[in-house]
Amino acid sequence: MNAMVNRQWQVARLPDSGGVSNSGGLSLSEDVFGLGDAPVPEPGPGEVLIRAVYFSPDPMNHAWVRGIPGKFDPIAVGQPMKGGVAGRIVASRHPDWREGEGVTGFLEWQDYAVSDGTDRLGVPLQRVPDDIALASGLGTLGMTGQCAWLGMTDIGRPKPGDTVLVSGASGAIGSIAGQIGRLAGARVIGIARGAAKADLVRGLGFDDVIDAMAGDLPAMVAEAAPSGVDVFFDNVGGPMLDAALANLARGARIVICGATAHYDGPTPITNHLMLAMRGATMAGFFYFDHVARWAEGRERLAHWLRTGAIRDALDISEGFEAVPQAALAQFTGGNAGRKLIRVSEDRLV
Amino acid sequence: MNAMVNRQWQVARLPDSGGVSNSGGLSLSEDVFGLGDAPVPEPGPGEVLIRAVYFSPDPMNHAWVRGIPGKFDPIAVGQPMKGGVAGRIVASRHPDWREGEGVTGFLEWQDYAVSDGTDRLGVPLQRVPDDIALASGLGTLGMTGQCAWLGMTDIGRPKPGDTVLVSGASGAIGSIAGQIGRLAGARVIGIARGAAKADLVRGLGFDDVIDAMAGDLPAMVAEAAPSGVDVFFDNVGGPMLDAALANLARGARIVICGATAHYDGPTPITNHLMLAMRGATMAGFFYFDHVARWAEGRERLAHWLRTGAIRDALDISEGFEAVPQAALAQFTGGNAGRKLIRVSEDRLV
Repeated sequence: MNAMVNRQWQVARLPDSGGVSNSGGLSLSEDVFGLGDAPVPEPGPGEVLIRAVYFSPDPMNHAWVRGIPGKFDPIAVGQPMKGGVAGRIVASRHPDWREGEGVTGFLEWQDYAVSDGTDRLGVPLQRVPDDIALASGLGTLGMTGQCAWLGMTDIGRPKPGDTVLVSGASGAIGSIAGQIGRLAGARVIGIARGAAKADLVRGLGFDDVIDAMAGDLPAMVAEAAPSGVDVFFDNVGGPMLDAALANLARGARIVICGATAHYDGPTPITNHLMLAMRGATMAGFFYFDHVARWAEGRERLAHWLRTGAIRDALDISEGFEAVPQAALAQFTGGNAGRKLIRVSEDRLV
Repeated sequence: MNAMVNRQWQVARLPDSGGVSNSGGLSLSEDVFGLGDAPVPEPGPGEVLIRAVYFSPDPMNHAWVRGIPGKFDPIAVGQPMKGGVAGRIVASRHPDWREGEGVTGFLEWQDYAVSDGTDRLGVPLQRVPDDIALASGLGTLGMTGQCAWLGMTDIGRPKPGDTVLVSGASGAIGSIAGQIGRLAGARVIGIARGAAKADLVRGLGFDDVIDAMAGDLPAMVAEAAPSGVDVFFDNVGGPMLDAALANLARGARIVICGATAHYDGPTPITNHLMLAMRGATMAGFFYFDHVARWAEGRERLAHWLRTGAIRDALDISEGFEAVPQAALAQFTGGNAGRKLIRVSEDRLV
């Protein structure tokens, strides 16, 4: 890498599906990505310069490219894309940041970005402690780990002896949610698609794994959770959510974290009346409503990482050029664990 | 009426849809009802004799006729049906009950029933205070009023300034739920089907009424609740629930009380991911899990009835012979308010 070049992934053309609503549809395809470059920016007073090491693909990538009505316009053609970035501070004129520190935030997908201490969503940059791997800043300590923690802490509330079911258990959020369930003393069942992902989930210490491709989902859930599901942490929606609803224990809590099934269009559920039959609760949360709790979540998660109580499941692609394919794989189930793309070597400065 | 005859509505034949699940399907049709009679039973020591005045049709009627696997068998052909009954104690050998007292419970649908102080679900008979109309014992003070109170108190929790939306607002539960929302200081919007029911809802003091047959439901909800729905009390499900999900305010609470849309088969919803977008909660409750709270609910509801803060909306059919048609009307939207059938004159003894 030539340090003087600031490579960028830019929006090469408008996505096909303009004006998609908030409902989670996708707007990226490989030809929306265009490679370009720009000068390395100079940090002004009160600013830092960040060198990118990892990018993480997230649903936010789609939102930025298509825009969200009333919140922000789509990124213009020729402008850099934005997404999750973990990097190092390589120059600091900001009193709170020193060179070499690890940092994460939503920034441009380019080699170098300038920040005043906040990211492109206007929220504070997050510090990655020196004794924790930079990649974990986008994994367990990142939005995905934090979503797992928030959903389990505020809504799922697993207790010792509970049966916890996690969909998308091999994914960035599900893999952490299940481990948090284990730490709470619950019996944790993961659902994953295919034998390879099921193996990954088993390796993370889940008590049981259901391969969603191996049979009838409601029947497999009934067999794995004979006394019912006390907590369902859902990243998938559709038939997965219906299978869990059909098998709820009395007083169950369902955490609606995401719905990857909706990536291909709306996927209905029919069993919502089971919430009344079982006196159960289904609730969601919006990550960016909880900025005030991020510090607490990061402390807990960092402690669990340091003590080995939680392990990151990372799926790292190599090279700046790998970005489009690797990012898109995230949205078609092509990842196993948190998908990251390493775009440069992690040096301290 | 000849006091020596104990008329009964009996199960005349097995329903067509045997073995239906818990999901709320219907199993009654007019030819399942058969008229018969039996001797007037004699109360033994510790028992009371109750003379029926009102019957109320409820989803429980269907459950009794088709049975619930693992809970109880279907009522045998030739045996009396069971359902909600309000009546008078006409003879008492029970220390807690005196002649002339008003009482409600799930009993046989016949003129005279004997009880040891509990009903056919094994829960205590409920006393109707002397200064409250017997019909209200099956309305505001009955299961329907209690469901409205439980759902609003435990899940909906309306606050002053909130926007509360109620589906099935002209029904037995919705009519009370909306009035409880008003008492909490919220702005209450009812949804009803057709102009006559909309008028009934308006007459109960709802701030606004949407006629579900008058246009596009999501658009009408958006117009009536421009800052979003804080509490949705749902008795209908399906497209009604989807319209509310599309219009939730941040932090909204959805009470799943019932799903009349399911009477004709499962009705899917597609907008559940809005729970995450809006940090919202959707929860249900099972009335019979809350026996310990019935006394508190009845006290509150009785106070509101006495002070005129809540009014019963009753839809009373006349005569023992009217039972099949009147009961079935309840399940096809043919009622406006709590459907009751007066099967005898209300005399004190």
